[in-house]
Amino acid sequence: MPATAEPCVFVIFGGTGDLATRKLLPALYELHAQGVTASGCIVLGVARDPGMDDVRFRALAREALGDGHDPDAVARWAESSLHYQPVGEAKREDYESLCARIEALEREHELPGNRVFYLALPPRAFDDAVRCLGAVGLTRSAGWTRVVVEKPFGRDLASARALNDLLHEHFRERQIYRIDHYLGKETVQNLLVFRFANAMFETLWNREHIESVEITVAESLGVEERAGYYDKAGALRDMVQSHLTQLLALVAMEVPVAFEADAIRAEKIKALRSIAPIRPTDVVFGQYGRGTIDGTPVPGYREEDDVPAGSATETFVAIRLEIENWRWQGVPFFLRTGKRMARRLTEIEVKFRRAPVWMFRTVCEDVFRSNSLLLTLQPDEGFSLFFDVKRPGEPFHIKRLPLHFSYAGAFGKLPEAYRTLIHDVLTGNQTLFVHADETEAAWALYTPLLERRGAEPLHEYAAGTWGPEEADHFTGETPRAAT
Amino acid sequence: MPATAEPCVFVIFGGTGDLATRKLLPALYELHAQGVTASGCIVLGVARDPGMDDVRFRALAREALGDGHDPDAVARWAESSLHYQPVGEAKREDYESLCARIEALEREHELPGNRVFYLALPPRAFDDAVRCLGAVGLTRSAGWTRVVVEKPFGRDLASARALNDLLHEHFRERQIYRIDHYLGKETVQNLLVFRFANAMFETLWNREHIESVEITVAESLGVEERAGYYDKAGALRDMVQSHLTQLLALVAMEVPVAFEADAIRAEKIKALRSIAPIRPTDVVFGQYGRGTIDGTPVPGYREEDDVPAGSATETFVAIRLEIENWRWQGVPFFLRTGKRMARRLTEIEVKFRRAPVWMFRTVCEDVFRSNSLLLTLQPDEGFSLFFDVKRPGEPFHIKRLPLHFSYAGAFGKLPEAYRTLIHDVLTGNQTLFVHADETEAAWALYTPLLERRGAEPLHEYAAGTWGPEEADHFTGETPRAAT
Repeated sequence: MPATAEPCVFVIFGGTGDLATRKLLPALYELHAQGVTASGCIVLGVARDPGMDDVRFRALAREALGDGHDPDAVARWAESSLHYQPVGEAKREDYESLCARIEALEREHELPGNRVFYLALPPRAFDDAVRCLGAVGLTRSAGWTRVVVEKPFGRDLASARALNDLLHEHFRERQIYRIDHYLGKETVQNLLVFRFANAMFETLWNREHIESVEITVAESLGVEERAGYYDKAGALRDMVQSHLTQLLALVAMEVPVAFEADAIRAEKIKALRSIAPIRPTDVVFGQYGRGTIDGTPVPGYREEDDVPAGSATETFVAIRLEIENWRWQGVPFFLRTGKRMARRLTEIEVKFRRAPVWMFRTVCEDVFRSNSLLLTLQPDEGFSLFFDVKRPGEPFHIKRLPLHFSYAGAFGKLPEAYRTLIHDVLTGNQTLFVHADETEAAWALYTPLLERRGAEPLHEYAAGTWGPEEADHFTGETPRAAT
Repeated sequence: MPATAEPCVFVIFGGTGDLATRKLLPALYELHAQGVTASGCIVLGVARDPGMDDVRFRALAREALGDGHDPDAVARWAESSLHYQPVGEAKREDYESLCARIEALEREHELPGNRVFYLALPPRAFDDAVRCLGAVGLTRSAGWTRVVVEKPFGRDLASARALNDLLHEHFRERQIYRIDHYLGKETVQNLLVFRFANAMFETLWNREHIESVEITVAESLGVEERAGYYDKAGALRDMVQSHLTQLLALVAMEVPVAFEADAIRAEKIKALRSIAPIRPTDVVFGQYGRGTIDGTPVPGYREEDDVPAGSATETFVAIRLEIENWRWQGVPFFLRTGKRMARRLTEIEVKFRRAPVWMFRTVCEDVFRSNSLLLTLQPDEGFSLFFDVKRPGEPFHIKRLPLHFSYAGAFGKLPEAYRTLIHDVLTGNQTLFVHADETEAAWALYTPLLERRGAEPLHEYAAGTWGPEEADHFTGETPRAAT
């Protein structure tokens, strides 16, 4: 049984939006069905739409949960737990009504004043929401108050600092849950167990035994309907600063004092601050041109709807960086991400150093290879350990084979990342959430690249490939799964 | 394609016996079918039986190969390649006839004088055969001459030395192929690849990272028809001195200079010579009593046919030993073997040290366990790497799981150990054969135990169990596969 949550009101800003209907409401229902919220969790959807009400919001939720859940149980949950409150942007009086509504629900359901504000809002609506919550006193209550923030956490170092300052004006860091949904994935959580429960791996986890680390987040999708946002953001902001940097921090961090949020996040921050400034020669920007995905021709980025014809936004970034500390000095870390790549995959490859001598040189002409550990997050969560084995029989021949582990294979269907993360919000566990200092350390690293971006070449790559050739020079190889 | 052999005459002493018909003739036929002996390999069966002749020997071989081989192809091979020569024990004139017969076959088939003498003989017939081969000059020829010797290589240090002296009187060490068929198994050969091609494992392969090594050879069979031999030998001579010690040497040896017979055997000898004298308190002898195997009641050892009623012969031995060198000082090696144990299995478990701190103590009550590598030779060849992984979902829970590799799964049916070993005899590769110094180093280690055996307690264990309880005190655990 997962830990049960204390009773609370769970307020979703953007309650009728895409994230709420696709991820948050299903996660909240499943936590209810699991009994995590058995002591009471009233969900209050908040959005601008004045035509929406409790009844319609419940219908929306029932529709959103659709297949895969018992419709009667969903209907009972919606009836007893879901409510809706219209709140206009920056309308002080609406926030006062919201406050009154929350208090009324707490009285009605005898709740002790614990509140979650999940801000599933676009960046432009974000500041106002925080200010208004503060203005009407919704940042403090008789119980606890937690605020959940979705990325992007700013667009550069200055805006990230401003955003953190704004949040800290109204909330303490301990109340703030910055979500990077990659951290809710089992493989990512297991990375800590992998490293710190298995002495075998942690022994090898340093410059003496690791040759390189390669983190790849490849999407086969293009910009889809997000062109308006994406063309202003680009891959560096959208993916590298968040997901790739989080994975990097977890791979590179030192052993924390304990398995606790503060201890773990302190080590992640240290790792990020140890990264050397990235040199211009260690970055490759790319943008996809026309190409073919799964046999279907697809347009180039500049031909996509809502993308300006001459856009210089990067849809691909590859970065080589070094972490200047005792553990990692001299070990290159490669980050690579792009849209419209050959296949959707997210993986971390830890390549171990080769044996100092190739003892089999006299009997075997096979290439001298590295062992490697491949952690895959997409499409399947799991990992593979690649090692050399003798092929049976004569002549002597060595073959590289993987030992493969699949989470779904070992444990069945995995929980959705959002369910894991909302559970942690409800139980007050910040381990898998991003600390303010992490966001600023990451932006401090990438902001110089963002500022230089216009001056650097932008390499075109055909959709459906592994990115521009220029990136191959320093990222070593194409992703493992591609070979 | 395996390396092809030079043309030769392959003489099998004990040519009509069990080993010849079950293992040697099938192996020789398969090497012929594979083309390894395409340049010519005349097989000459030798036994005492004067009623046997070429025709009958060929019929015996055809029958022995039975199912699983093309009968026409087997018949053609037998017709063209198999011959028989009766030779009485210690009859000088018979050896002269043998010599003449070999020379005649060599003339007839235009062979250059390369000869293998495979001595598939009981120990008592062994000395005479070697002496007679020497007496009639069959130990030298125009080509190469190799002699293959089956275990037991003596019954203690003195007899092993005498046997080696006798062999060296007539053959050079480079001509002598001492067979321990365990060394022909793929897992055993792969142990070298595993250790020396995969930097990952060799890095961990020492006292700093390994907690213990446990080698188990368990048989579920009893003494069967071998009581006459077995009651004089016992488990220490029959299994520990040979198979278990060979496995031990391969696990413990230093990195050889090259993947060559002399270099590898030199390291095995060094490892064996570094073993500290075994203390009486570090040995447990056992003998099986009545019990149940697979639900069927079976008699105790002393009730078996041909076993003396009061026999004190051990059918089980467990030994704890230490290797006093820089790599292994302080790491216990456990050897364990027995008849009538719960299941037939041969495995080597390398248990790694635990993480220095259990970082998950605050969130997880799971036991603090070791990673381990389990190499299995029987019933299936392969290995498993046991490590800790996070169970998906809440609450936080760590589970120990294996990554499993199966040779047959990856490569299909494996070659029989005898085919591998005879191939190596034919191509002159001594890597998988036991050097004289290895046999003596092993006997030097175990002879004091043999001498003390009568004075030590003999613990009874029920057939179908993992041996006497007394052994559990120092062998740590029951075999991995048993759990």
